[in-house]
Amino acid sequence: MDFIHPRAAAAVADLGARLGTKLVTNATVREQHSHDESWHRGPLPDAVVLAESKEDVQTAVSICAEHRVPMIPFGAGSGLEGQVIVMQGGVSIDTSRMTKIIAVRPADLDCTVEAGVTRQQLNVYLRDQGLFFPIDPGAEATLAGMAATRASGTNAVRYGTMREATLALEVVLPDGRMIKTGTRSRKSAAGYDLTRLFIGAEGTLGIITELTLRLYGIPEHMAVAVCNFANVQEAVATVVETLQCGVPMSRIELADTAQIEDINLYSKTSLVESPTLFLEFAGSPAAVAEQVETVKALAEAHGGSDFAWAKTEEDRRALWQARHNAAYASVARRPGCKLLATDACVPISRLVECITETQKDLANSIIRAPIVGHVGDGNFHLNVILDPNDPTEVEEGKRISKNLANRAIAMEGTCTGEHGIGIGKMSYLKHELGDAIDVMKGIKAALDPHNLMNPGKVFV
Amino acid sequence: MDFIHPRAAAAVADLGARLGTKLVTNATVREQHSHDESWHRGPLPDAVVLAESKEDVQTAVSICAEHRVPMIPFGAGSGLEGQVIVMQGGVSIDTSRMTKIIAVRPADLDCTVEAGVTRQQLNVYLRDQGLFFPIDPGAEATLAGMAATRASGTNAVRYGTMREATLALEVVLPDGRMIKTGTRSRKSAAGYDLTRLFIGAEGTLGIITELTLRLYGIPEHMAVAVCNFANVQEAVATVVETLQCGVPMSRIELADTAQIEDINLYSKTSLVESPTLFLEFAGSPAAVAEQVETVKALAEAHGGSDFAWAKTEEDRRALWQARHNAAYASVARRPGCKLLATDACVPISRLVECITETQKDLANSIIRAPIVGHVGDGNFHLNVILDPNDPTEVEEGKRISKNLANRAIAMEGTCTGEHGIGIGKMSYLKHELGDAIDVMKGIKAALDPHNLMNPGKVFV
Repeated sequence: MDFIHPRAAAAVADLGARLGTKLVTNATVREQHSHDESWHRGPLPDAVVLAESKEDVQTAVSICAEHRVPMIPFGAGSGLEGQVIVMQGGVSIDTSRMTKIIAVRPADLDCTVEAGVTRQQLNVYLRDQGLFFPIDPGAEATLAGMAATRASGTNAVRYGTMREATLALEVVLPDGRMIKTGTRSRKSAAGYDLTRLFIGAEGTLGIITELTLRLYGIPEHMAVAVCNFANVQEAVATVVETLQCGVPMSRIELADTAQIEDINLYSKTSLVESPTLFLEFAGSPAAVAEQVETVKALAEAHGGSDFAWAKTEEDRRALWQARHNAAYASVARRPGCKLLATDACVPISRLVECITETQKDLANSIIRAPIVGHVGDGNFHLNVILDPNDPTEVEEGKRISKNLANRAIAMEGTCTGEHGIGIGKMSYLKHELGDAIDVMKGIKAALDPHNLMNPGKVFV
Repeated sequence: MDFIHPRAAAAVADLGARLGTKLVTNATVREQHSHDESWHRGPLPDAVVLAESKEDVQTAVSICAEHRVPMIPFGAGSGLEGQVIVMQGGVSIDTSRMTKIIAVRPADLDCTVEAGVTRQQLNVYLRDQGLFFPIDPGAEATLAGMAATRASGTNAVRYGTMREATLALEVVLPDGRMIKTGTRSRKSAAGYDLTRLFIGAEGTLGIITELTLRLYGIPEHMAVAVCNFANVQEAVATVVETLQCGVPMSRIELADTAQIEDINLYSKTSLVESPTLFLEFAGSPAAVAEQVETVKALAEAHGGSDFAWAKTEEDRRALWQARHNAAYASVARRPGCKLLATDACVPISRLVECITETQKDLANSIIRAPIVGHVGDGNFHLNVILDPNDPTEVEEGKRISKNLANRAIAMEGTCTGEHGIGIGKMSYLKHELGDAIDVMKGIKAALDPHNLMNPGKVFV
């Protein structure tokens, strides 16, 4: 076969000799590893390693390092900014078969898992023990992938992101050495915060093989409702006031009318097709009752409807599943089209203005882009659905995305709250953080002097 | 005057020319900048820059960099591991005069402050707006110093540490460039987490000039009590069960009998002299009542006394002030003696065992070391009080400290929960994180290739 990278042939031969059938070069598997769930596309990797253990990862990395062949970490392939795309040839190192839950320690509310464990796999495993792991991007991502992109989701308003949820990582460095970045202690002032450095490094500094994560007790009582508004602005104002009142919301999510239409079609729900808040309250029954009373009053003052409650545990799950599938729902409405996901996050006081300006931009556009978001964090997405083969649509999608990133940055926010930079937001990162990029590049050069680990990502 | 560092004379001349009276070389000021609040001691710095603005810091750093003279950031001098000590000569750069509160944004629950603002200065400023900043080491530290050491305190069990409380930093790099590490957005996936990298770097990667911090609304209702136990083990067991029940404690702190004796003498309190928990509950009145009921039942099961409530706001403040002054109280009991503070932090399930083993070690020792700690985080301190001129005491203090660090590490914990490594815990860091130290050294070399920024700290 033909290899893209000039030194790939020799590396693949060595990988095959050491890893046997865990080294795969067939076109189907390579195609699966050439993209994520977004509109970004790249060439096929030269080969794929289907690692089954940290030792396999270490072997693969050592061989690639020796041959100076690029290596690209791969989890579930559910990213949204092309982080898993092979830019210049090289080997995709897939950790999704590393699915052992190594230890769950209820007394310490923590666990240790292999890189390929997914968020739902972990939560199914934990449920009988009354525990859960809160970080929940829409996709069924691997936990290592979630750490690599600093993912969050609907629970971040209460529980934080992968940054707060991770106690320690085990990482294979670009030269094949393996390190532990921390311990199981809840806090530490011991040296540089390498755990947080690898979280959000998007696989450019090493490959995560193991994670030690914080867990939480499933709340005694939960109540889930939806509430409809005349417009997105009234809905968001309700969220802002709820947070300013200090109500410890468990989840508080927004979808606009277009998004609700897509959800109803895809998930066979019959939600009222208007701007909607999805609300989850948790705690003791008395605490929940207090929270509900406060938020109801705020919603009413903004013309919100009566709360429509999910009556059973099954209803509750179905509602959140529908919310998690929102992006898939929008993609499904236009077969053959792909998702360009924006990911602006702004200080909450600017959120109404940011969404309003964005709606004005969309009103004049050929693009349909439902709005959905973690508004409690100031974070929302336009699910820009476009035909990747239509240059006009692609250009318009990019224009909308760029305008929104610039708008968020001008409001002291960020171009990406939870998806990462990948290959899609590199120019925005420079605009957002300026010379700080040089510090990032210095760190990258120190840890990966030959630029072998996921090259071509994050930095311009 | 004589300079320790061979290139200090030229640098000091340039600093004086540019900074005028903000460059100080008198012996009193240099002595003040030669130590922190611990037993660690070093030589005097060659000079001190009393910076009044970020521009002063940038000027000082640029000149030191040009002359390749070491520079040592200095805040309140309240550290406990010698982080501000000048090892090989050089210039102490003091940011404690940079005390502007630049912006408070109640709607976003955040603020931006200069490096030298202290935690109490900020909280006094915020009080009228119903807001507070939760991170509270015992000392009246500067916020930049607290970020540099990844400090926490009594509120960490509920609000986290400086790691969670900081949104963004402005930092002067070792070559004099200034960067912003983040934005005001609540979460971000934009590039490497430089904010978290500088938090806990102990001034070895740059000098923090400005911080953007999260704020919180002062809870609607607070209740503070002390509860006495027959021994430390029963007290800690109560804490462990409280957390395992998911009670969202605001503060839950331990002091042993020796520590209470010292507090009573120093703070003129009349606390019962037995192992004691200091408890703070916060929330709505109903939520607080629920929490109190749960914890009371747990404490009773462990032989705890009735809760003695702080009846007024003034009582509440006095009680926490006494707790914050615990280490000073122990130092004051032996004039001329100094503090060697241990800082072990372990998974909560190991805390009783860790303290029990430590007590056994102390029982056979000439050293008196009261125990006080943030047991809700698994973190506790021995306030080892020793005569720095008595080699036997110093050796014994080091032995106790080393044994405890090793014990914590063996229990999957850390040698330092919140004080940092400085010059006091370098060998423990190596033991705790192994080859990860090499990654830290690589980052240090990349950002500070001439090893000018606070050299001789953190790494062996």
